[in-house]
Formats: sequence, C-alpha cells, structure tokens
Amino acid sequence: MNTKLNAELNTKIINTLRILSVDMVQKSNSGHPGMPLGCAPMMFVLWCRIMAFDPSCPLLKSRDRFILSNGHGCALLYSMLYLLGYNYSIDDLKKFRQLCSITPGHPEINAALGIEVSTGPLGQGIANGVGMAISSKKLGLKNHIYVMCGDGCLMEGVSYESASFAGHLKLNNLIILYDDNGITIDGKTDITFTENTRERFKAMHWNVLEVSNGDTDIEDIYEKLLLAKKSLDKPSILFVKTTIGYGCVNAGKSSVHGAPLGTIATEQLKEYFHFNKEEHFFVDEEVQEYFINFKKEKGRGREENVKISIENDIEYVVNEIKYFKNCDNPYATRDSSHIILNKIAKLLPNIIVGSADLAESNKTMIANSMIDATNFNGKYLNYGVREHAMASIANGISTYGIIPVVSTFLVFITYCLAPIRMAGLSKHKVIYVLTHDSIFLGEDGPTHQPIESLTVLRSIPNVLTIRPCDTTEMSGAYQIALQYNGPTALILSRQVLPNVYTSCMDKMKKGAYTVYESKSTPLINPISNKKNKNLDLILVATGSEVSLAIEVSNSTLFENKNIRVVSMPCCELYDLQTDEYKEIILPKNVTKISIEAGATLGWYKYVNYTYGIDCFGESGKMNDLKDHFGFTVEKVCAFIEKLSI
Amino acid sequence: MNTKLNAELNTKIINTLRILSVDMVQKSNSGHPGMPLGCAPMMFVLWCRIMAFDPSCPLLKSRDRFILSNGHGCALLYSMLYLLGYNYSIDDLKKFRQLCSITPGHPEINAALGIEVSTGPLGQGIANGVGMAISSKKLGLKNHIYVMCGDGCLMEGVSYESASFAGHLKLNNLIILYDDNGITIDGKTDITFTENTRERFKAMHWNVLEVSNGDTDIEDIYEKLLLAKKSLDKPSILFVKTTIGYGCVNAGKSSVHGAPLGTIATEQLKEYFHFNKEEHFFVDEEVQEYFINFKKEKGRGREENVKISIENDIEYVVNEIKYFKNCDNPYATRDSSHIILNKIAKLLPNIIVGSADLAESNKTMIANSMIDATNFNGKYLNYGVREHAMASIANGISTYGIIPVVSTFLVFITYCLAPIRMAGLSKHKVIYVLTHDSIFLGEDGPTHQPIESLTVLRSIPNVLTIRPCDTTEMSGAYQIALQYNGPTALILSRQVLPNVYTSCMDKMKKGAYTVYESKSTPLINPISNKKNKNLDLILVATGSEVSLAIEVSNSTLFENKNIRVVSMPCCELYDLQTDEYKEIILPKNVTKISIEAGATLGWYKYVNYTYGIDCFGESGKMNDLKDHFGFTVEKVCAFIEKLSI
Repeated sequence: MNTKLNAELNTKIINTLRILSVDMVQKSNSGHPGMPLGCAPMMFVLWCRIMAFDPSCPLLKSRDRFILSNGHGCALLYSMLYLLGYNYSIDDLKKFRQLCSITPGHPEINAALGIEVSTGPLGQGIANGVGMAISSKKLGLKNHIYVMCGDGCLMEGVSYESASFAGHLKLNNLIILYDDNGITIDGKTDITFTENTRERFKAMHWNVLEVSNGDTDIEDIYEKLLLAKKSLDKPSILFVKTTIGYGCVNAGKSSVHGAPLGTIATEQLKEYFHFNKEEHFFVDEEVQEYFINFKKEKGRGREENVKISIENDIEYVVNEIKYFKNCDNPYATRDSSHIILNKIAKLLPNIIVGSADLAESNKTMIANSMIDATNFNGKYLNYGVREHAMASIANGISTYGIIPVVSTFLVFITYCLAPIRMAGLSKHKVIYVLTHDSIFLGEDGPTHQPIESLTVLRSIPNVLTIRPCDTTEMSGAYQIALQYNGPTALILSRQVLPNVYTSCMDKMKKGAYTVYESKSTPLINPISNKKNKNLDLILVATGSEVSLAIEVSNSTLFENKNIRVVSMPCCELYDLQTDEYKEIILPKNVTKISIEAGATLGWYKYVNYTYGIDCFGESGKMNDLKDHFGFTVEKVCAFIEKLSI
Repeated sequence: MNTKLNAELNTKIINTLRILSVDMVQKSNSGHPGMPLGCAPMMFVLWCRIMAFDPSCPLLKSRDRFILSNGHGCALLYSMLYLLGYNYSIDDLKKFRQLCSITPGHPEINAALGIEVSTGPLGQGIANGVGMAISSKKLGLKNHIYVMCGDGCLMEGVSYESASFAGHLKLNNLIILYDDNGITIDGKTDITFTENTRERFKAMHWNVLEVSNGDTDIEDIYEKLLLAKKSLDKPSILFVKTTIGYGCVNAGKSSVHGAPLGTIATEQLKEYFHFNKEEHFFVDEEVQEYFINFKKEKGRGREENVKISIENDIEYVVNEIKYFKNCDNPYATRDSSHIILNKIAKLLPNIIVGSADLAESNKTMIANSMIDATNFNGKYLNYGVREHAMASIANGISTYGIIPVVSTFLVFITYCLAPIRMAGLSKHKVIYVLTHDSIFLGEDGPTHQPIESLTVLRSIPNVLTIRPCDTTEMSGAYQIALQYNGPTALILSRQVLPNVYTSCMDKMKKGAYTVYESKSTPLINPISNKKNKNLDLILVATGSEVSLAIEVSNSTLFENKNIRVVSMPCCELYDLQTDEYKEIILPKNVTKISIEAGATLGWYKYVNYTYGIDCFGESGKMNDLKDHFGFTVEKVCAFIEKLSI
C-alpha cells in the first residue's frame, strides 16, 4: 500500500475529518468539537498508515485494536470509520447523538462497526487496552492495541493501576496516544495536574515518546508510532502536544471542549481550512477516491476471518461440571468454587482467572498455571491490590473471547463498580468471584462486611447476581455463568454452609425454586413445584440463609403450619420466568418473608416482609454476630411469631 | 520532655508493642501479626518522639493526626494507644476483635480514643490524610498529618490520585510512612508491583526519604521524620524497609500477614525478644513508668482544648437559605443549587466546595474563592478528574469540622462508592452534589445516564439521598444536609424542572408528603395531610417526575378519580417517621404507583406498582428519550389504565 501520500492530500484528509466532526456536533447541537480538531492528525496517521485491519472484514482475529478512551471525541472516530469504508453512511453521521442512530454520544461496543469497546467514563479505555494486550499475547497474536486518551484518563486512578500493571507485564503490544492539550473542562490542566507525567510513566517502565507538534507534524507522529511498535519489553506512550479546538477562534480554551461551536465560529473554521462555508458534511472527490483505493488495498492478502468461538468448549465444560454436587462433606461456597473453578480452568483453554491479591481468601488460585511477563500461556494472573484495574482489564480481556474470572471480597465492589457497570452495559462475559459475602466473615468488621452489596449488584441491568446455598447450587451457578453472554457475579461464603439436600442445579436456573415444605417429606423426595395448596407461609432465602430458613420452618413453634422454603439464588433469572411459574413458586395469596443477611431494600419486590440487616456490621466472632444480628433459628422464629400469620 | 531515651529502653518498648500485638491476635485467634512486628519501631518513634498530642486531652485542635491506612495492623495501634495512656485497659486489648469491644478488627473512628478515621479498605487512609492536611492549612494550624501504609495502599488508584493532588497542592504537612516490606497477601510484592515507586513519587513532587533498616534503626527513622517535618513545599514519603513478621520463624513470608502465629511460634517469638513465654499481655515496670511520665509531660503547657464547632454557624445559615424558594422562573435543580450553595458558602466560614473537573456542569463553582497551593483561605477547590480521591479527601476534610461539598455526575458514584460507603459508616458530614440525575441528560448516552444509582445510594446505611423536585425542595434539601450529622447525596437535574406550587421545604423533612390531590384545589391551597378519604390512587414520585405525576393525575382520563401525588425526596427520612404518619401519607388500602426515571428495585417497599427504567439508557434528545422510555403523560396514563384500578 502506498503510505507516502503527498502532504497536501494528507492535510486535506485531516481537515475533512475535522470539518466532518464539527458539522456532526453542529447539526446535532450537542457534543465535543475540541478534541476532534486537535486529534485528527493522530487519528489519520494511526488508521491510514499504521494500523492493520480490513474495513470489509472488520472482525479479523489478528486486526489491530483501537480504543478511544476519551470517548467524548467520538465524532472524530465516526468520521474516520466512515471515510475508511466501515458500514456508516453520511446519513449516519448526520444522525450523530440521535436516538437509535449508530453514532451515539459516546462509542458503544460494536466490533463490526470498528468500535471495540464502549467508552466514556474516563480511564476505562486504558485498562481495557491492557486487557486486550494480555489476551493478544495469550492467543499468540502479533497485533497491537492503540489507545487514544486525554488528561482526564491519565488523572483517573484506574489508569494508574492499569499502567503500573502493564509496565510490570512488559506489554510491548500496547501503545497509548496521549492528547496532551493542556486543557480540562474546568480550565487549564495545571490548575490540578502538575505532576511530571513523563517521569511517572518512566518509573512504571514505559517507553515514553514525544511529539511536540501534533497539530500538523504528521511525519513525527508516524515516526514515533513506528518506534513504539518496535518496543521490545515495554508498553509505549506518546505525548502528543495538540491544540484543543485547533483552527477555530477559541482554540486552546476549555470553552471548545464540550459545546457546539455555533454557526459563526463553524463558518470561520471552514474558511480557515479553505472549505466552502456553505457546504456541510463535505468530502472532496480526491479524498473519496483515496479511501476507495485504500479499502481495496486493505482487502488484499488477508488471513482467514477466524473469529474465536468458545461455545463448543463451554458446552463441554458445563456438562463436565454437572458432576460436582453435594457429597458427604459440606463446604464453604468459596471452597466448592475453588474445586469447580480448577476443573473449569483445566478444561477450558481460553480462561484467565485472577484476584486482587486475595487469591488465598477468594480461593481462586489455579495451580501451576501462572501468567507473568515472560509467559502468557498460563491461566492464572495475579492482579495485585488493584480491584478497579482488574475489573476493567477483565472487560478488555473478554473482547477476545477469553473468559476472565476475577475475584475480591464482595464489599470491595465499591472499588470496581464502574467496570462492573460497563460490563453490564456492554454485555462483557466476565465472571466475578466475590467471597466473604456477609457479616458472617466475622472479625474483620464493618469495613469488610457487605450490607448493601447484593442490592447494588441486583440493581445494575444485565448483571446476573447468584448467591448459591451449597455445593450443588455452586456448580449450577458456574453453569449459568459460563452460558450467559454477559457478566455474572458469584456471591460466596467464607464459612462452611450445610448441604441442602433438595437443592437442585437445574431448578435454580429459573432463579428461584422450592427446596422445602415442612409438611412434606422433602429430605427424601424433592418437592414438586406444583403443590401450592394449604401453604401458611413462604420463606425466601439465598446462600447461607437457605438452611437457616429450613431450620426455622421445622421449628416446633410452627408444627401446625405448612411453611415453604424457596431458594432464590438469582433474582434476575426469576424475573425472566412466566407469570405462571412465579405464581407456582411465590403465589400471591400466601404471606412471604425474605431472609438474607444484607440490606432489605430490594426484597419487597418479592415478599411481604423482610428479614435482613439495614445497618453496618460489627467486628466479632461469627456466632456472636449471628446472635447479635438475629440470624439464629430462635430469633427468626420470634420475628415470624410476632407477625401473627 | 526527654526524647533521648537509652537504646535499651527503646528496644524494650518496641518489643512490648510487638508482643502485646501478637498476644492480642493470638488470644482472639484472628488478626494480622505480620505488620505489627515490622512496624513497631516506626510506631514508637512517631508517637513517642515526633508527634504533638496529649493522651489526657485527645481532642486538642492542634494535635498531630495519625492515620493507619493499612488498618489491618491495628493491634499495633491499640497497643501503642494503650501504653500512651489513652482510654484503653489491658482488658480492652484482650477483647481484640470481639463484639462490642473498643478494639475492633479494623480501626473505627473515635478521636477520643486516638482513632482519627476508620480504615481498612486500602488506600483510603492516604486520601483521608490529604483531606486533613488541606483542612489543617485552611484553619491555619501548624500540625502534621502522619499516615502509615503498606504496599496495598500504594497500589490502589485512590492513593495515586490523592498523592498526585497532594504534590500539586504542596502539602508539606503530610508525611507518609510506607511499610516497604516487599510482601503482599499473595506472595512477594514483585509478583505484581515492580514500578519504581520512589521515582513515581518524585515525579509527583514528593519529598522521598529512605530508611534502609526499619526493623531496628530507630535513630534513622527519627532523623528522617525530622527531615520530613522540615519540608517546605512538598509532602513527604519515607520508604521504611521492614521485615514482615520480624522476629518470628516465618519472618519475611506472606504467611505471617493475616493469621495468628499459633502457640509454638508465639512462644518462640517471645524467647527471641527475651520475654517470658508463659506470660501474656505483659508490660514491664520500667515501660509502665516511662509512659506514666510521658503522659505527665505531654499534659504540660498545652493550649486550650478548642474543638471546632459549627453548629451555631449552621443554624444561622439554614435560617438564611429558607428564603430561597420557588419564584416565577423555574430552574434546573443544579441551577437553584448553584444559587443556594453560593449563599451558603458566603455565610459559612468552614466549607470547601469542589468538583472532579465538572464545576461548569455540576454548577458548583464558588466565585472568587479559589484554593490553591499558595492560598488555602478560599472555599473552592478544583479536584481534577479524580472522583475517588475527591470523595475520600472529603472524608478527611470533614474530620476537622469543615463541611466538604463535592460534585460529579450521578452516574460516576461508581468511581467513588468506597469513600461514600466509608462516609456512611463513619457518619462523615459530607455533601455530594450529584447532577445529571437521569437519562434525561440526553445525548451523552448510557455511559453517562444513571439507572441504578439512586438504588445504590439508598441501599447504603446512614447516607441520606435527596432528590428535590424544584427550587423550594432544593432549598429544603440543603437545610437537611447541613443539619444532618452524616453524608447527604443531593440528586439534581440537568434540565429545567417546573415549579410544583405546593412543594414545601418543611414537609419534605419527613421524607415524603402530599403535594397534590386531583379532586382538591391544590394549586391554591396545599393539601392537608389528613384527608385520606375517597382516594383512588396514589402516585409517588421524586425530582423531575413529581410534576409529571401531577400532570398525569389531572389527565381527563382520570377525571372521575381522586389521585394523590406524593413527593418523596428522601426515602431514608420517610422510613424514620411514625406508622401513623406513614398511614396518613401512604395508606395501606390505597393502590400506590411509584414514578421515577431509574431502577425500580427499591420502590416495592413503598408501592404496589412501579414505573421506571430497568435497562440502560440511550443517546438522544431529551424529548425523544422521554417518549422512548415512556416518561410522557400519555404513556404513564396508558400504564395506569391497563392496571384497571
């Protein structure tokens, strides 16, 4: 391919990108013109002279990946992808930021359209890039991951955590282009950000490169990117000095960041770049012709379009782990998880398990399979004490068809909720192993004891939250997680949980099912879901509270009552069931009480009364806490008696 | 005071701290012995030779502050405070990690007992220290803030954000003691953390000091702390090389981090330090005598114990802002917030308002009152794009009696949920201004549109979440926030909200109240809360949905029905009301529907049917989104009609 275009055409293409982007923002009367005007040269060099990809075949396994971490600048990316011949029309550009358009206000994952991940929340794209770089190395690919970002991305803690980790792992296939424009929304960057960022990245073992004039010196951008690609054992970051809003009257000021330029300034801009100010969404014939040829060239001699598919692997693995179920010994669910997860990791080639320095507590260690800077063939990755980066990196890993399993204490979802939300939004297939799932972790006390965590997870769309009650449900939970094309949070106990003899990995796939009725003989025969007659009360419980609910239902206090116990490991799956099924399990005319050692707020959706914990926990021994917070048979029975049902 | 103790006594005190800590862990059969064995020399030098404080008068305004960011090592801190003569008995040490003891598993805020903030979640303590250093400078105090931390704290993104900001602000009154022991829970630190941390801190403009033998060279620790105290324009970090578990058989290994040593290893340890292995919780007479004298010395010549009290200021300010209420012009609540907040900031000396680089969007700018490295007298602080640090720093600021007001978009609580949770747990008086409170922010799309956020905040104990419907409720919300001794989240609209003519800042203090009944004449006279007869339906709404609910209730479709609209700006306050009040506002026998543009999960507690958004948003114009997601009068009416109430 002819990469040495004449300078005039280069400039015309770059200015076309600039003007298209500004027209988009102007037409939608909403968006961010400043970044596209500054970053168009980088975008051009990257896509037209550096990256390996094919617009006619956008899912090529070995394609280079591009991530726009400063996602608010997406008008520029859409303009670029449009010119390159991805499946955008000029009308799509005109519908920028309109409902149901393919050009929304921040990039939304759609690899077929050149959008590798959703971005917007700052810093996430850098972490996603680290995850992609790890996946690429694990799969033995030779591609590169390019991340464009701004000041905001570098200020965010998640980018520090990720960059420190990328330097540690010597990810030389990762290249950041930093739009070093010296401007943030609230003013000049130096009102808050005066660290020596170059030195900081050097301290984290990055290859630091500099482009002193990113507004016009495209050859320098090109040369520095070539240097970055040659890095042997370090990720690279290019500090590209640009002028935000380059070419317009308010260039270099915060005011051009996030609002349309207005008609007059747009006209002035077009004049500055020698465009006809009467024309909108204009692409010169020479530019069109260039990209027609470019697309042809890109289509030549490419490898097979092999998308990584793990569906067959997953079916096989799920069938194998069905054999894990309750046996004589009861386990903590974190322990049964450990056994099952090791089996899964043994059978599944494309999996990366890890923990934020709590592998011994989360029980996620995979034996003899460590990934490190010298070897990415393994299946276990130590993330260090970096929950936020870990979960964001997992999102990046998952885009390659590798399943990331990441773990920490449940309470510490507070450190990584942004990427969990992004996983829900983007339906990334990520499995979170979240242990120490209630105050019953004991002595570590309220900073470590989840109260609100389950409610938080259940309130995020598309995230499955599963709290199994024993080994059988633990196995079922992994089966669900492996088959679900989205993120799943597995909520596991530190303490040993009794076997529930009627738990069922198949029934649990409906989210909730009857595990016990006190007037039946359930210890021998599991209850049919169809017997709803003569029920006095239903107790709905999850995880460690299922066996407690069964004990309560068997209390001599209630010997004249028929009490059903429903295990509800996954509210989201239950919500998907038919009204008929719901009426069988939780009939409207029977009083229902939830029992869960956590916030009650989310339970009124399913029950009439809730039994939970709506204050913070306490440091103490587990049995003392059970008594103090009322999670004993006696105290639950007393609560029920008072209701006079 | 005699600071030049003989070396033998120093060593004896340090070893007493070590053995006391190990005995505590051993007796409770739970805890972390590794850190106390390594950090006892630092702890001794700091408290016995460096810090200014008085155990008899622990709340002295000018005292130096100590934060144990690696809070799991708290056995060491309790031992130290016990010896110093804070109000701990030897029995309190014996009750370590027991329910209702004053020695819980991680430090829990109690300044009278020497615990300045709750710690445990790693990295938070460093950010808290930055907040305290800012408060100290604003109040013109000359004290120092000392933070002890471990590898985990430095790996966390929040510590990077905070450290970068501290360097920017030249906080020379902040000193970190980094327990550089080379060990994390999952193994040696270098399995994940190989950056050059010293160079990184230098790049962030920190004064970097080194102690090569922190296990025994207490004079070096002392000298380096003296140097740090003399820093003119930089915060300081001491890299103190220690041996985790110093003195015990598994010294230097991860295994000594988080589990009791066991009887045999404890006996060996006591022998190593020449303690009687038969004795437990032993304090030598010479050591006791030393601390009796020490306490006497500390009590001499101290200043007045002036605790900063802002209660009178707050009462005055609250009375003043009562005059802000609906006038002719309707406002976006972010705009009415801007006006009221500027009034508050003008009247209240001890306030620091700030934003994570979104001041122009959050409308939190306070004119002509900027805080920067050269001037801490102001009332406005730019935090940069650092949501996590901002909220954690706010917790630290609040401990000095200064009210921090911090702002970002509502959706980005995902970046700072850990410090919001800590604020709830510790009852820090922090005000969060969270704008762009629903999908109606429009074009920025689903990464910026909150869905689950309100449910998340409402599920955290002790956090008040207030979503006002107009200017009057906005004013009431600030009154509540200022008077509440804990954290309050104010949830504000980007778009203009119509005035609700019957909104009431006094009634809203009960969390929910009737704003309208369709068969009354509410536009003239506010409805009395006592008329519950002949109600057909109650609509419960918050924020932007209150006026929508009133419009719905007035629809000609329902002209034969009496529909009440309840504004419920704060669920948490409503929960505190009497059953009688609740029965007046939301009587059991009337059908109730919630209307809120967000997740419905938490609403079933109050209503029979919910109307909300349980999927992610879309990029588009506000009115298109209102139609698409059903937030128009027509679509809400259609929903209600289908219910056939």
